Amino acid sequence: MDNFKYHSPTTVYFGKGQIESLSREIMDKGFKNILIVTGMSSAKKHSVFDEAVSRIKEAGARYFELSGIQPNPKIKTVYEGIRICRRDNIDLVLGIGGGSVIDTSKAIAAGAVYDGDCWDFFKKTAVCQKSLPIGCVLTLAATGTETNGNAVITHEEHVKKAALCANTLRPVFAILDPVYTFTVDEFNTAAGIVDIMTHVFEQYFSHTQACDIQDRLSEGILNVCVKYAPIVLREPQNYDVRANIMWAGTLALNGLLGVGRRGDWSSHGIGHEISAFYDISHGAGLAIIVPNWMRHVLNEETACRFADYGRSIWSANPRNSSLDIANYAIDKTRDFFNSLGMPSGLRQMGIDDSRFKEMAEGAAGNGVHLGSFIPLDKDDILSILMASL
Amino acid sequence: MDNFKYHSPTTVYFGKGQIESLSREIMDKGFKNILIVTGMSSAKKHSVFDEAVSRIKEAGARYFELSGIQPNPKIKTVYEGIRICRRDNIDLVLGIGGGSVIDTSKAIAAGAVYDGDCWDFFKKTAVCQKSLPIGCVLTLAATGTETNGNAVITHEEHVKKAALCANTLRPVFAILDPVYTFTVDEFNTAAGIVDIMTHVFEQYFSHTQACDIQDRLSEGILNVCVKYAPIVLREPQNYDVRANIMWAGTLALNGLLGVGRRGDWSSHGIGHEISAFYDISHGAGLAIIVPNWMRHVLNEETACRFADYGRSIWSANPRNSSLDIANYAIDKTRDFFNSLGMPSGLRQMGIDDSRFKEMAEGAAGNGVHLGSFIPLDKDDILSILMASL
Repeated sequence: MDNFKYHSPTTVYFGKGQIESLSREIMDKGFKNILIVTGMSSAKKHSVFDEAVSRIKEAGARYFELSGIQPNPKIKTVYEGIRICRRDNIDLVLGIGGGSVIDTSKAIAAGAVYDGDCWDFFKKTAVCQKSLPIGCVLTLAATGTETNGNAVITHEEHVKKAALCANTLRPVFAILDPVYTFTVDEFNTAAGIVDIMTHVFEQYFSHTQACDIQDRLSEGILNVCVKYAPIVLREPQNYDVRANIMWAGTLALNGLLGVGRRGDWSSHGIGHEISAFYDISHGAGLAIIVPNWMRHVLNEETACRFADYGRSIWSANPRNSSLDIANYAIDKTRDFFNSLGMPSGLRQMGIDDSRFKEMAEGAAGNGVHLGSFIPLDKDDILSILMASL
Repeated sequence: MDNFKYHSPTTVYFGKGQIESLSREIMDKGFKNILIVTGMSSAKKHSVFDEAVSRIKEAGARYFELSGIQPNPKIKTVYEGIRICRRDNIDLVLGIGGGSVIDTSKAIAAGAVYDGDCWDFFKKTAVCQKSLPIGCVLTLAATGTETNGNAVITHEEHVKKAALCANTLRPVFAILDPVYTFTVDEFNTAAGIVDIMTHVFEQYFSHTQACDIQDRLSEGILNVCVKYAPIVLREPQNYDVRANIMWAGTLALNGLLGVGRRGDWSSHGIGHEISAFYDISHGAGLAIIVPNWMRHVLNEETACRFADYGRSIWSANPRNSSLDIANYAIDKTRDFFNSLGMPSGLRQMGIDDSRFKEMAEGAAGNGVHLGSFIPLDKDDILSILMASL
């Protein structure tokens, strides 16, 4: 196990009706001017927006609104939010929505107190060390952004989807009410679960030895996803099922599974390239890429790790060889994603191979390899993309 | 799953040489006068005390010392620490040691800013809402106190061992270097592991349904304990083994396993009574009590929970009946504790049944039942104590 620092200070209010904690949080911390960031109409659809506004008024604070955040959120919207923060002396950025909304809230909170162009943080030419406080009300189980310090934003002109990671961006509080996810449709529910599982994979497929705690927790989260994903599609209003999936999403990417070891993140790197060019659903893109990434990096050396995965998640026969179990586990992963209604090839998403070379170059960076489990060069990435057609 | 609030703000520095983070923490937060709380000689033995002092000096702060904290720490020592805090304007209480030292540090930190007698908090006649900041350097994997808000203190005159739980007592930072546990002897290493496993049991044996995430994480922690306990006794200086056990101890009682469900805590209740009368090792007491508690609460209704435990931790044959698996799992638990050198009966610890009635009355409280998985009355507790002789 490697050395690590772990700090996850977000206060989580989990469960039915927890929106009522919003007024206390606002009053305790003395927030006065709140920027609410929301998606298109979903927040208002299940009335969470109205409930939040009541709590804000109850707490004696004012609110301003930035709505219309779309999936694969754009830097332009971030700039708009920053303008509101400066104009209206915003002291809390409150995201109400899924990953795109909360990531946008974080980027706004970082940019509002930065003199330069906040895209600098995403280009890594500046380090984000402070931000306005961020709060969130989650309405989609997927990205884990509700307690971590990550934000992923797309720059359309640069055709680039990039991540910013900074501890200051961990929300002060996160309200997680599984009821808010009852109305998420089948496709987005499934895509969210694929995203959660991929977050686990990116940390689990690591060469760092003796991370037993992290491994067992990872397998636990995966097993819950595999158990509950088919059920939630049949019973979208099953509270306990939604609750387990929501909490799985948070724990999958709040740091716990990744501490003390080197993660991979290749599938996310490739997925972000695809989203930058084609604006497809992040989870659906991952459902296509992940099994092909697994197959590409499987070799004699990595087989035992895939075999651990196959035995603990897919009840593979332990008497079979590691390589057999690994191949079985990869097939099971692909079949599982497909059984949830996820696409199995990029063509199904209207994507051909015309931009693959640019994507591979973008994902590999300037001669730097992508990932660490098996570092990938441009040609590797191109192969994975071709296999994903 | 029940509603919950989860907030674990402690910054954890985990790994070899992490003591160097101490100076940064002190400088960042501007601490000037630090009270170091330590045990008898163990802290100095592996030079952690000297290392901490160097870092404090490097950070330009002054330090004061309260040493000699013993297992089952006493309220008298807490009062002594409070006097030092007031006299020397202490702004950080730094525990360097195991659970007793850190719990004492917390009680001091709470009492230093309270006008009355800080035993009030333990009697529950006052609520602890503020404290001095607490930091810790852990030298024993066991209680989980390093990131939680709990402190357990003994009042000798009242013959009472009682717990204080308050969010303000969560340490600001915790330095967890597995190397510091290399010199812990076999008995205390094993007792620590029993304590860790019992923390998991107290949260796992619950009637709250559909806490799959918490269950899988709990089983993961237990499996790591069962895997590594025999190895650590043979290889006390195996870094990876000590690291996994140390991190298991932290995660077992920082809230993660208990959120969203009602815990039991009967074994701790009974164990604390025994320690209050006889000053025996907490972990060794639990090793005796836990299997007898399990047997006492096993019935047709609870068998399926014990069967979950037996299948996931002790590879019980899933074709057997729940009751058979439950009995098998309880036997395995007892055998496992004994295999680690833990006592199997109180007589081995020099304890007879002469005070059992008082203990049972103390544990049951004023007609209130102990625990929730199967609520225990005085007679139940007496039966468990008799079975533990």
